Amino acid sequence: MSAAMLIDEVLATAPAHAVVPLVQRYHAVRQHSLGLVTPLSPEDCCAQSMPDASPAKWHLAHTTWFFETFVLERWEPDFAPFHPGFRMLFNSYYDSVGERHPRPARGLLTRPSLAEVLIYRQQVDARMGTLLQQLHANPEVQALVTLGLQHEQQHQELMLTDLKHLLFANPLRPAYVARPAPVDAAEVAGASRAARPLRFQQFAGGLVEIGHARQALDDEATAFAFDNESPRHKVYLAPYAIADRLVSNGEYRAFVEDGGYDDPLLWLSEGWAWRQAAQHRHPLYWEPGAPGAWLAFTLGGLQPLRDAEPVAHLSYFEADAFARWAGARLPTEAEWEHAAGAAWAEARPGLRGPDQLHPQHAAEAQAQWFGELWQWTQSSYAAYPGFRPAPGAVGEYNGKFMVNQYVLRGSSCATPAGHARPSYRNFFPATACWQFSGLRLAKDLSELPPGG
Amino acid sequence: MSAAMLIDEVLATAPAHAVVPLVQRYHAVRQHSLGLVTPLSPEDCCAQSMPDASPAKWHLAHTTWFFETFVLERWEPDFAPFHPGFRMLFNSYYDSVGERHPRPARGLLTRPSLAEVLIYRQQVDARMGTLLQQLHANPEVQALVTLGLQHEQQHQELMLTDLKHLLFANPLRPAYVARPAPVDAAEVAGASRAARPLRFQQFAGGLVEIGHARQALDDEATAFAFDNESPRHKVYLAPYAIADRLVSNGEYRAFVEDGGYDDPLLWLSEGWAWRQAAQHRHPLYWEPGAPGAWLAFTLGGLQPLRDAEPVAHLSYFEADAFARWAGARLPTEAEWEHAAGAAWAEARPGLRGPDQLHPQHAAEAQAQWFGELWQWTQSSYAAYPGFRPAPGAVGEYNGKFMVNQYVLRGSSCATPAGHARPSYRNFFPATACWQFSGLRLAKDLSELPPGG
Amino acid sequence: MSAAMLIDEVLATAPAHAVVPLVQRYHAVRQHSLGLVTPLSPEDCCAQSMPDASPAKWHLAHTTWFFETFVLERWEPDFAPFHPGFRMLFNSYYDSVGERHPRPARGLLTRPSLAEVLIYRQQVDARMGTLLQQLHANPEVQALVTLGLQHEQQHQELMLTDLKHLLFANPLRPAYVARPAPVDAAEVAGASRAARPLRFQQFAGGLVEIGHARQALDDEATAFAFDNESPRHKVYLAPYAIADRLVSNGEYRAFVEDGGYDDPLLWLSEGWAWRQAAQHRHPLYWEPGAPGAWLAFTLGGLQPLRDAEPVAHLSYFEADAFARWAGARLPTEAEWEHAAGAAWAEARPGLRGPDQLHPQHAAEAQAQWFGELWQWTQSSYAAYPGFRPAPGAVGEYNGKFMVNQYVLRGSSCATPAGHARPSYRNFFPATACWQFSGLRLAKDLSELPPGG
Amino acid sequence: MSAAMLIDEVLATAPAHAVVPLVQRYHAVRQHSLGLVTPLSPEDCCAQSMPDASPAKWHLAHTTWFFETFVLERWEPDFAPFHPGFRMLFNSYYDSVGERHPRPARGLLTRPSLAEVLIYRQQVDARMGTLLQQLHANPEVQALVTLGLQHEQQHQELMLTDLKHLLFANPLRPAYVARPAPVDAAEVAGASRAARPLRFQQFAGGLVEIGHARQALDDEATAFAFDNESPRHKVYLAPYAIADRLVSNGEYRAFVEDGGYDDPLLWLSEGWAWRQAAQHRHPLYWEPGAPGAWLAFTLGGLQPLRDAEPVAHLSYFEADAFARWAGARLPTEAEWEHAAGAAWAEARPGLRGPDQLHPQHAAEAQAQWFGELWQWTQSSYAAYPGFRPAPGAVGEYNGKFMVNQYVLRGSSCATPAGHARPSYRNFFPATACWQFSGLRLAKDLSELPPGG
Repeated sequence: MSAAMLIDEVLATAPAHAVVPLVQRYHAVRQHSLGLVTPLSPEDCCAQSMPDASPAKWHLAHTTWFFETFVLERWEPDFAPFHPGFRMLFNSYYDSVGERHPRPARGLLTRPSLAEVLIYRQQVDARMGTLLQQLHANPEVQALVTLGLQHEQQHQELMLTDLKHLLFANPLRPAYVARPAPVDAAEVAGASRAARPLRFQQFAGGLVEIGHARQALDDEATAFAFDNESPRHKVYLAPYAIADRLVSNGEYRAFVEDGGYDDPLLWLSEGWAWRQAAQHRHPLYWEPGAPGAWLAFTLGGLQPLRDAEPVAHLSYFEADAFARWAGARLPTEAEWEHAAGAAWAEARPGLRGPDQLHPQHAAEAQAQWFGELWQWTQSSYAAYPGFRPAPGAVGEYNGKFMVNQYVLRGSSCATPAGHARPSYRNFFPATACWQFSGLRLAKDLSELPPGG
Repeated sequence: MSAAMLIDEVLATAPAHAVVPLVQRYHAVRQHSLGLVTPLSPEDCCAQSMPDASPAKWHLAHTTWFFETFVLERWEPDFAPFHPGFRMLFNSYYDSVGERHPRPARGLLTRPSLAEVLIYRQQVDARMGTLLQQLHANPEVQALVTLGLQHEQQHQELMLTDLKHLLFANPLRPAYVARPAPVDAAEVAGASRAARPLRFQQFAGGLVEIGHARQALDDEATAFAFDNESPRHKVYLAPYAIADRLVSNGEYRAFVEDGGYDDPLLWLSEGWAWRQAAQHRHPLYWEPGAPGAWLAFTLGGLQPLRDAEPVAHLSYFEADAFARWAGARLPTEAEWEHAAGAAWAEARPGLRGPDQLHPQHAAEAQAQWFGELWQWTQSSYAAYPGFRPAPGAVGEYNGKFMVNQYVLRGSSCATPAGHARPSYRNFFPATACWQFSGLRLAKDLSELPPGG
Repeated sequence: MSAAMLIDEVLATAPAHAVVPLVQRYHAVRQHSLGLVTPLSPEDCCAQSMPDASPAKWHLAHTTWFFETFVLERWEPDFAPFHPGFRMLFNSYYDSVGERHPRPARGLLTRPSLAEVLIYRQQVDARMGTLLQQLHANPEVQALVTLGLQHEQQHQELMLTDLKHLLFANPLRPAYVARPAPVDAAEVAGASRAARPLRFQQFAGGLVEIGHARQALDDEATAFAFDNESPRHKVYLAPYAIADRLVSNGEYRAFVEDGGYDDPLLWLSEGWAWRQAAQHRHPLYWEPGAPGAWLAFTLGGLQPLRDAEPVAHLSYFEADAFARWAGARLPTEAEWEHAAGAAWAEARPGLRGPDQLHPQHAAEAQAQWFGELWQWTQSSYAAYPGFRPAPGAVGEYNGKFMVNQYVLRGSSCATPAGHARPSYRNFFPATACWQFSGLRLAKDLSELPPGG
Repeated sequence: MSAAMLIDEVLATAPAHAVVPLVQRYHAVRQHSLGLVTPLSPEDCCAQSMPDASPAKWHLAHTTWFFETFVLERWEPDFAPFHPGFRMLFNSYYDSVGERHPRPARGLLTRPSLAEVLIYRQQVDARMGTLLQQLHANPEVQALVTLGLQHEQQHQELMLTDLKHLLFANPLRPAYVARPAPVDAAEVAGASRAARPLRFQQFAGGLVEIGHARQALDDEATAFAFDNESPRHKVYLAPYAIADRLVSNGEYRAFVEDGGYDDPLLWLSEGWAWRQAAQHRHPLYWEPGAPGAWLAFTLGGLQPLRDAEPVAHLSYFEADAFARWAGARLPTEAEWEHAAGAAWAEARPGLRGPDQLHPQHAAEAQAQWFGELWQWTQSSYAAYPGFRPAPGAVGEYNGKFMVNQYVLRGSSCATPAGHARPSYRNFFPATACWQFSGLRLAKDLSELPPGG
C-alpha cells in the first residue's frame, strides 16, 4: 500500500469527526493533492485545455491561496503574503476579495513555476500547522479550515477531470497512470460482456425531508455540509421508481447504434442545437475502433469500451435524450436523495487505489449510488427554501451559481475518500461532459409495467 | 369603440366555452392579428432585429401555417397547399414536420410580400370556415383549432414585443402608435410621483395543489390549458410572503442609482458576466435624459420614465439582483400560483385599448397579478410530475424547451384578452429582456420584520 | 425602348463632356437609380442580407445624402436638412462628417419608409436643380456634382449585386426580372455548348505608363477619374501574355470536377482556410441540379449553367486557385491596363437592357475587357507613386481602403453605361464573391509553349 | 565570451560559403537554438499565448522535424522515424506532407516533454552528422540542409518574439534574462534623452534592379536566398527620399500624446476598426507608468521607455498612421532595398550578446538598416515577376502566403547572426505587432522642403 493510499485510508475510515484532529486531517488532505501530481511533468501541470478547466498547478496554488487568504491573513500575527501577486493570480471567483486573473488565461502562467508553487504550499502548510496548534479550538478557525479542506477535495476531483481533458487533447493519447496489463485479445472479447439486468425499485413518495441534517454528527463525511445542502426541508414526492444501477456502456451503445444522435425528437431543443453545433455523435472520450468496436479514453490511456461498465462523461442533454429513448426520465434530486439516503449505510464508497480512476461495472448487490459516477438529475440547481449564504467572502461559494446549472448527485471514482454523502449537491451546466458524469433512470409508477 | 376593440370584447367577456362557437372565436382571434399590423408598413412587417425576434409578417404566416398543416392538411378533402415552399419557410421549430428556414434569416424573406401573406391568410381562413361548418363537433378538430388559436394569441404578444425591439433599433425611435398627448412639462413633473406603498401578504403554505384543473370549464380563459400546465399536483410550500404589487420604476431607479449594476455581490455569477459583456447599466429601453432624469422607449415612442409604473423589460438576472439588493427574493412559481389563484376572481384582466400597450401604475386595490407585466419566478422551467407531451407533432410544443429557461407568471399589457389564467406558464432564458417582464418580490416569513 | 433605356442611351453615347450639360446628366443618373428599384417591393428595398451589403433603400438615400451634405449644405443659402436624423443614418464611412449608423444594422431601418426616401430624393433633386441653374459654371460645384454622380453610379452596381445576394438568401429563389422565356429542354441542352477557344495575346512589356491621363477629355467616360487612378506614372513590365477572353463556366466546371476544391496545394494558405471554414465547393450561386448538371442563380432566377458564359462571382482565392490549376496566373493591374488600353476604342461597352444583367459568352471577335465581369488582378490595392487624396471629407473616398484589398479591372454587366474606362480601379477583399467578378488568365512569356 | 556567443561569432564572421563546412554550420545553428531555451523552465517552453505564436518546445521539435522529414527520410538507409506521431504533431503547414496538429492547440502538447524533445534533437543531430559526412557533396543535400538551417534561424527569432508575448501575458511581467543593472533614478532621467536629428536621404530612382543576385557568392549571408527573393528584376522608381534612421520612441510618444489614436482620419479604414475593436491606445508592450511617463515590457522585464530608442512592436496600421501624421509615408520594398543595398557594406549587422535583445538608439553614423527592427514597407507581399516556387513539399514555403500580408525589410535585434541581407523579404499581416517591427519614413521628393 502506497503512502498515498495510507493517507486516503486515514481520510476514509476515520469513524468520527472528533477522533481525527483537525491538524492531522489538514495535512492528510493537503498531502493527497500532492500525490495526485506525482505522475505529472511541470508541463502537464501548467497547460489548460479549455476555459472551463484549470491547470493542476493552478489548483495546487488556488487551494493554498484559500487558506492563506481566509485563515492566515485573518489570524496570523504579522501576516505577510507569500507573494503579493498571488492574491490576484490564484483567486478563482471571489469578486469581493479583489481583482482576478482571467480564467481562460490560467494556462499562460508559466511563472510561478511548479517548483515555486510547491514551495508556496510548504510555507503555507507550515504556517497553518503553527496556527492550528494554537487555534484548533477556535470554532471560526475550525469552520473555515474544514471548509477549506472540503474545497480542496473538490479541486482534487477537478484536477483529475481537467487533466483527463488535457491528455485527451493530445493526439498521442497519453496515460496519466499506466494500466497494469496491456490490452489483449481476451480483454477485447471481455469488453462485450453485458451488465447485470437493470431493475426499478419503487418508492411510495409522500411528504419527505431532504437536505443536510445538522444533528447527524456521527461520521466525518456527513458531519460537514456545504451551505447549499441546507436547510433540511419538506418535499412532496409522487410515487416513483428508480433504477438499481447506472446505465451501462452497452445500453448507451444501443442508443448510439439505434440512431439516437440523429433523431431530433429525442432531444431537448437546446440539446439538439448543442449536438448539431459540435457534431457530437457519441460521448466525449469514445472513439471508433475496429469496425463495430469502440474505444474509450481513460486515465489509463485508450482502452476497449467495456459494455458492462457504466457510461461516463455524458452531458445533461445526452442523459436526457437517452432517458427519453429508453421510455424513462431522469430522477429529481429529491427522489434521488430519498432513495439513496435509505441505502447510505451500505452504499457509502470505500477505498480506491490510484490505478482505479475509472468506474466499475455493478456487481449483483451494488446499486452504484456512490463512488462510480455523478448522476444527472432533472433538477435545476436552486436555493432550498430558506437558504441563506454564509456572510462575507466565503458566502460567494455556492449561491451565485444558482442559475442554468443542473444538479448531479452521488460521487465518482475520482471523488476523494470521505467526500461523499446523500445530501451532496454537485452542479454543472447542461453542456458539461468532462466530469465523471453518468445517469440513473427513473419513472413514474404509472409507467412501470404491471407487476414491474 | 373600434372594431378591434369589439373583437377583443368578444374574446374577453365570453362567459363560457360553449357559448362562443368555435368558428366565431376562430375569426375573432385571426382578425385581432390583422389589427396589430394595421399601423405598420410592409418594411416594418419584414425586418428582424435579432435572432430571438421574428418579423410581424412571419408571425402572420406562421400562425396560418399552423392551421394549414395541422388541420387542413389532415381533414380537408383534396388538400393542396397554398404554396409548396411555405411549409419550410413558416415552420418554426417542429423538427418532425420537416426542414425549417433558419431562424436568424427570417428577416431576409422579402418574398412572399406582406400582400401575399395577407392573401394566404384569407384563403386559409376561408377554407377553415368551410371546414369548421362541417367538423365543428369533431373533438380532435376542436382541440387542434383551440390549440391553434391559443398559439396565435401567443404570437400576437410576440408581434408586439418583437416590433418594440425593432423600432428601438432605429435611432429615430419611431412610435408604433402615437400617444394621445405630447410630452409636456406637467407630464415630466408627474413622472416622479411614487407608487403606492408596497406591502407583503402572508401565506401559511403547507401541502397545496397547483397546475391546471381540468374540471374548471366555467370560463373561456381557464377551460383551455397547455400541456405544460398539467397534471395538477401536490407541492409542499413553507410559509411565505409575497408583495401586493410589482416593483416600480422608482424603486428600480433607486437600485440603479445606488450602484446596483456595479456590485458583483448582488448578481448571480452568470448574470454578472452578462452585465459585463454587454455593458448593461440599466434596463433595456431606458435612456439617460436630462441630468437626473430618465427616458423610456415605449410603443408610443420615447417618454419620460414614470416612477409609479412597474419596471419593465428586466432580464431574470436583473430581477434577481434587484431582489437581493432589496433583501427579498423571487417567488417560486408554486408560491405565485397559490397566491394569485386566490385572487383570480378579482384579478382577471379586463379590456385594454390599442393605445394602452404599456403597464400602468397600481391603484390602491390593484395587485397587478395580470395584465401589466409577466413576473419572473425563481423556478426553472421543468416538467410537472407525471407530465406527458401530446403525441405527434403538436407534442413538440412545450416539453422540448424544458432546460435553461425560467418561468414567468401572470400576463402583460400585450397579452391578448382571454389569454391569461393562474396556471399559465410562460418561460424565457435568463437573459431575455425584450418581453414585457417585471418582478414581484417574495420573502420567507422569517425575513419579515415582526408584525410585518 | 423603355424610358430607362433611353436614359441609359443618353449616358452612354454622349460624345463629349461639354455636350451633355451637368444638370441634364445629373437628372439622368439620378433617374437611373429609380429605375433599378421599379421591380421591387418596399420589403425588397429594406432588407440586408449581410453586413457587406446594403438595402436598396439605403443606397437611394445615401447617394442623396452625398449631394445634400457636400453640395447643398455648402452652397445653398438658408440650407436646412431634409431631416436632421438622416445625416447619421445615411453616412457611409465619412468619419470626418460625424457619427454613423452601424453598417450591419442598415436593414433595421424600416423608417424612413421607401416612400419617405423617394420624397427625400425628389426634394433634394429639386433643390439641386435650382442650385445647378445658378452655379453650373462653378468649377468646385462641377467637380463635386460629377464626383457625386460617379459615386451614385457605383452604388447603382452595388444595388444590383446586393439585391442578387438578398434574393439568393430566399429559398424560393425569386427573380429580380423575369427571363423572357422559360427553361426548356433545348436550353438545357444548349447549356453545354463550349466557349470559343482561348488564346493568349503577347506583349513585349518594357517601360510603360499607366493611370489616368488628365488630357484625355474627348469623351465622357474617360474625362473623369477617381483620385486613385492618378497620377499617371511609369511602370516596368516584363514580357507577358494575356488571354483574349474570360475564363468560361465550362472551364471552371472542369476545375471543380477535377477536385480543385479539395487540393490544398492549389490554394493560397488563407484561401484554403476560407474554403474550409465555409465549406465552399463551387462558386457562390452555383447549385447542383440533376446528376451531372449545374444550376446558377441569376437576376432572372435559377437557370441552367451555360458552359460558354464567363464564370462569375469568384473570390480572389478561387480565381487564384483556378489560375494555378490551369498553369497560368492572374495579371497585374499594370499588365491588364496596358493590354486593355490598346483595345479601348473597340472594347468600350455598349448599351444593355435591364433583362441582360448577366454576362454573355464571348463571340469570335470579343475580348470581354468591359461590360461582362470585373476581372481580379494579382495587384494589392495601393497608392500610385505620388498619390495624394483630395482634401476634406471627400478625400476619405478611396485612400483609406488601401490595405488588404485586391484590384479588379474592366467593368461588368451591372456597371451603368458610361462608367467604364481602362484606368478604372475597382477593389474588394480577397473573400468577396457577391460582385460580378470573373477572371482573365495571364502568363509569363517563358511559360507559353514554343510558338504559343 | 560565452559558448553561445562563440557559436554566434562563427556564424556571423564566416567570410565565405566554402570556408565553413556544412556540417560545422549545421551544428552551430542547431546549438544556437538550444542556447535560447537555457533560461527557460519546461513550462515556459510549453505554453502558447495566442494562435499566432508557438511554444518554444514546438519550435525546437518542428525545426528538427524538418531535417528528419526532408533529409533523413529521403537519404538515410533503413530510415525509421524517431516517433511515428511526431510527423503530425510537428508539421507546421506543409499540407502535402499530411495531416497537421491544429495550430491553436500546440500549447496543449505537454507530451512529449521538453526532455523528450531534447532527446529527439540529439538523435536527429547525430544521424544528420553521420549523413552529412557521407553526402556533404551532394548538391540536393546541401540545398535542403541549407534551407533547413535558414528555416531554423527564422524560428530562432520567432522563439524570442513568441516568448516575449507569453511573458507579457503574465501579470507578474517576468524577464527572460535579467538586465545587468536595476532601474535607478539616473536611468529614468536618461530615458527622456531624444534621438539624434532625423534626416532624409535622396535617391534619383529610375530603372533599377532588385531581388537576389545569384552570382553574389562571396559571403555567407548573401549566398543563400529564399525563393521569394527571386528572380532579380527591373523596377522603375520615381525619385524619393528615405529617412536615415528609424522612428524613435520619443517621436512616436508625441504622436500618442497628440491624440493620434483618436483621429480616424489618420488611419486606414481597416486599421481604425482594428484600433477600435481592441481599444489600442499605444503600442503593444507600452504601459502607463508614473504620470507623464511610460514603461515598456522587454525581454529584460518592465523598463522605463527610452525616447532615443526606435519604437518597436508596431502593427502596419500603426506605422501607416504615424507616417500620415508625420506628413510622410512608408517606403516601398523596392525603395528600401535600393537604398539599403547601397549601404550594405557598412550596414551589415554585427554580433550581439544575449542580454541585448532590445533595439538600440542610433549613434551619429548609424542608419539602422539592420539588426534593430524589421521595417514595415507599404508593399503587399506578392510574387516577383517570373517567380516560381520550388517543386515538391519545400515549395510550400513562401508562395502560399502571398495574400493579405505586408513586407518588412531589414532585420532585428532578435535575428540570428548571419541571417540578414538586403534582398530578404519578411512578411506579416497588417495586424501583427508582436514581432520586432518598427518603421522608417519615406517621402516623394516633391514633398521635401526646398533644399531639404
